[in-house]
Amino acid sequence: RINGERLWDSLMEMAKVGPGIAGGNNRQTLTDADAEGRKLFQAWCEAAGMTLGVDKMGTMFATRPGTDPEALPVYIGSHLDTQPTGGKYDGVLGVLAGLEVIRSLNDLGIKTKHPVVVTNWTNEEGARFAPAMLASGVFAGAIPIDYAYSRRDPEGLAFGDELKRIGWVGDEEVGARKMHAYFEYHIEQGPILEAEQKQIGVVTHCQGLWWLEVTLTGREAHTGSTPMNLRVNAGFAMARIFEMVQQVAMENQPGAVGGVGQVFFTPNSRNVLPGKVVFTIDIRTPELAKLNAMRARIEKEAAAIAEALGVGSAIEAVGHFDPVTFDPTLVGRVRGAAERLGYSHMDIISGAGHDACWTAKVAPTTMIMCPCVGGLSHNEAEEISPEWAAAGADVLLHAVLETAEI
Amino acid sequence: RINGERLWDSLMEMAKVGPGIAGGNNRQTLTDADAEGRKLFQAWCEAAGMTLGVDKMGTMFATRPGTDPEALPVYIGSHLDTQPTGGKYDGVLGVLAGLEVIRSLNDLGIKTKHPVVVTNWTNEEGARFAPAMLASGVFAGAIPIDYAYSRRDPEGLAFGDELKRIGWVGDEEVGARKMHAYFEYHIEQGPILEAEQKQIGVVTHCQGLWWLEVTLTGREAHTGSTPMNLRVNAGFAMARIFEMVQQVAMENQPGAVGGVGQVFFTPNSRNVLPGKVVFTIDIRTPELAKLNAMRARIEKEAAAIAEALGVGSAIEAVGHFDPVTFDPTLVGRVRGAAERLGYSHMDIISGAGHDACWTAKVAPTTMIMCPCVGGLSHNEAEEISPEWAAAGADVLLHAVLETAEI
Ligand SMILES: NC(=O)NCCC(=O)O
Ligand SMILES: NC(=O)NCCC(=O)O
Repeated sequence: RINGERLWDSLMEMAKVGPGIAGGNNRQTLTDADAEGRKLFQAWCEAAGMTLGVDKMGTMFATRPGTDPEALPVYIGSHLDTQPTGGKYDGVLGVLAGLEVIRSLNDLGIKTKHPVVVTNWTNEEGARFAPAMLASGVFAGAIPIDYAYSRRDPEGLAFGDELKRIGWVGDEEVGARKMHAYFEYHIEQGPILEAEQKQIGVVTHCQGLWWLEVTLTGREAHTGSTPMNLRVNAGFAMARIFEMVQQVAMENQPGAVGGVGQVFFTPNSRNVLPGKVVFTIDIRTPELAKLNAMRARIEKEAAAIAEALGVGSAIEAVGHFDPVTFDPTLVGRVRGAAERLGYSHMDIISGAGHDACWTAKVAPTTMIMCPCVGGLSHNEAEEISPEWAAAGADVLLHAVLETAEI
Repeated sequence: RINGERLWDSLMEMAKVGPGIAGGNNRQTLTDADAEGRKLFQAWCEAAGMTLGVDKMGTMFATRPGTDPEALPVYIGSHLDTQPTGGKYDGVLGVLAGLEVIRSLNDLGIKTKHPVVVTNWTNEEGARFAPAMLASGVFAGAIPIDYAYSRRDPEGLAFGDELKRIGWVGDEEVGARKMHAYFEYHIEQGPILEAEQKQIGVVTHCQGLWWLEVTLTGREAHTGSTPMNLRVNAGFAMARIFEMVQQVAMENQPGAVGGVGQVFFTPNSRNVLPGKVVFTIDIRTPELAKLNAMRARIEKEAAAIAEALGVGSAIEAVGHFDPVTFDPTLVGRVRGAAERLGYSHMDIISGAGHDACWTAKVAPTTMIMCPCVGGLSHNEAEEISPEWAAAGADVLLHAVLETAEI
């Protein structure tokens, strides 16, 4: 078993970097706080005897050597970046549980045939630069690196420039590494495990996603002196499209979600009808055909709603992955480890996207989940217990050991 | 008649201060650009032999003395501040036409019994600090000065601090001045005069207004892993309330408007259901009973919409004036002047709010309007013709002369 207290201490230590405003974290990717978190993680890895490689997307790979020089490494990974008002565990748990696995192997003097590499992927959250899971997407060959470098945050700063600014452009070609297997341990970010009173989620699939960015063009005009029938109201078109997205999600129950997280009005003045409204739509479901049908319907109906109001519309897809099925052998090892260790468990579909969704394209991949209080995540109040954290890390240790071979 | 070319040149000169991004202006109140615009206006006033007074709200009063030391001044006023993406004429025309009246009186060697004062009111637009017409509201005793000083822009900067920063806190007590009459010349900002092919709008009334600020409290949560039925979605509640506001305005046709100009999502991240949404509602109509009934209905239905979604709601009124009836004598002088000068004219109700709405509480007040292309205002593309500008200024000159007495 891993050392649960040490794992928890490290989680609390990392949570001091980039504190939020309500007990959580604001350690958004490629900020100074992100750089500080990376330094702390690097120091811990080096203290545990690992050597660090960094690729051109800034992803950190800390390696514990194996005994067979020919054997491909087993990877454990997740992310240290957070939402602007993020929790202390989303991503961080997976990275630091990986570190804890290494520390435990060191304590126990266990050598593995395959090297074990702990990974911190850059820009998993996608809050600052869309899409999410950007570095793992480039790693898997799904996203061109030039496109990744060109992505801009709401302030207009480019990913490539910000990566350089914080000093984390590595020299490794992205995706050059070959993986024997990839494991990711993450909090569930949903309500199921807690409701079912299970300690471990054995993740068999991840639902697919489309991120759409809608740009509506109206006519800036005075809110007081512009009669209702002469308005070209981009803001009102947004409200109607939002209602439609909700309806589409509801009509696709069970097993589908749809929502709007980001809205920008221009000029965003009380007495001006907005000339431009940009907003984002996030739709997900585990069923591929349903996912694409939802997207098609939303794009068609959004265009019709805008047109009926005289408002111009353009929809860009800025993030996408198909539903993922994880590697059955690795899934079996996670289930078996939970069983052996006496942890209650159930199979689960990930509602959130993870770097594992991309590594699944290039390596046998699976995930482990632990519950979180009230299913709450992407919220500073995100909470887990030290016991939950440790249970999943134990399962991770066992599944990794079985795969990395002693 | 005034000198139309000189008036137009001054308008174009002022438009160079705080240029916008699309041919208009961004000279928002209490910015450096506002300070620069004030300096330019001050220099022009002094060159025209006027003396400047400034009150504690930063409002500028430039006086041309009268021949009777006992006579109260006739005021001409409007504002030099603009929307973030504002036009070159909204407010500016009224101030610079006032200046042109003085210059013409100087040219013609005309002395008036009553002094004539040209006024630049601070923060008419309300874009940066709500409510609009803040300084004239304090002047009329409708808004306490401490409240005005405490108002904050979206960046959190306070009105009082920004007024001090740009160096325009004057020493006059606000509202200490007594007015013989107040005239305001403004572009219509609506489509009626152009559609009716009239050169002059004789403004008889101004519609009343309520500005409401709605704060919705949901639960920040992950857009992917939070099932639809567990969402406490403040963003979605905003969309539904927006639709309801539109319905209320439509059901109160003719002669009512309702809209949303400003929306702030927190944390405004693509994959986070917003925990907090703040947005503004602007409703107007010339009928007092209708105005207050609209407000009551919107407040009631907004609360019900939020409650049905489990979302917390609070509504604050941050701006208000009742419908205004302008002084019949002054209205008659404007109508008579247009008639005498041979300008086509019609009576009109102002759709926008103006400083004249507040001075009407403390002095005989009226307004003159000129058409604007396509009724467009609060848009950098706002346009008028030099002939339209000059016609209204001629009417202003005559109505002012009749009131200030030769
Ligand atoms: N796990 C997680 O929150 N990832 C961010 C990408 C997503 O929105 O699913
Ligand atoms: N005239 C004008 O645009 N004033 C700003 C206040 C309002 O919204 O009516």
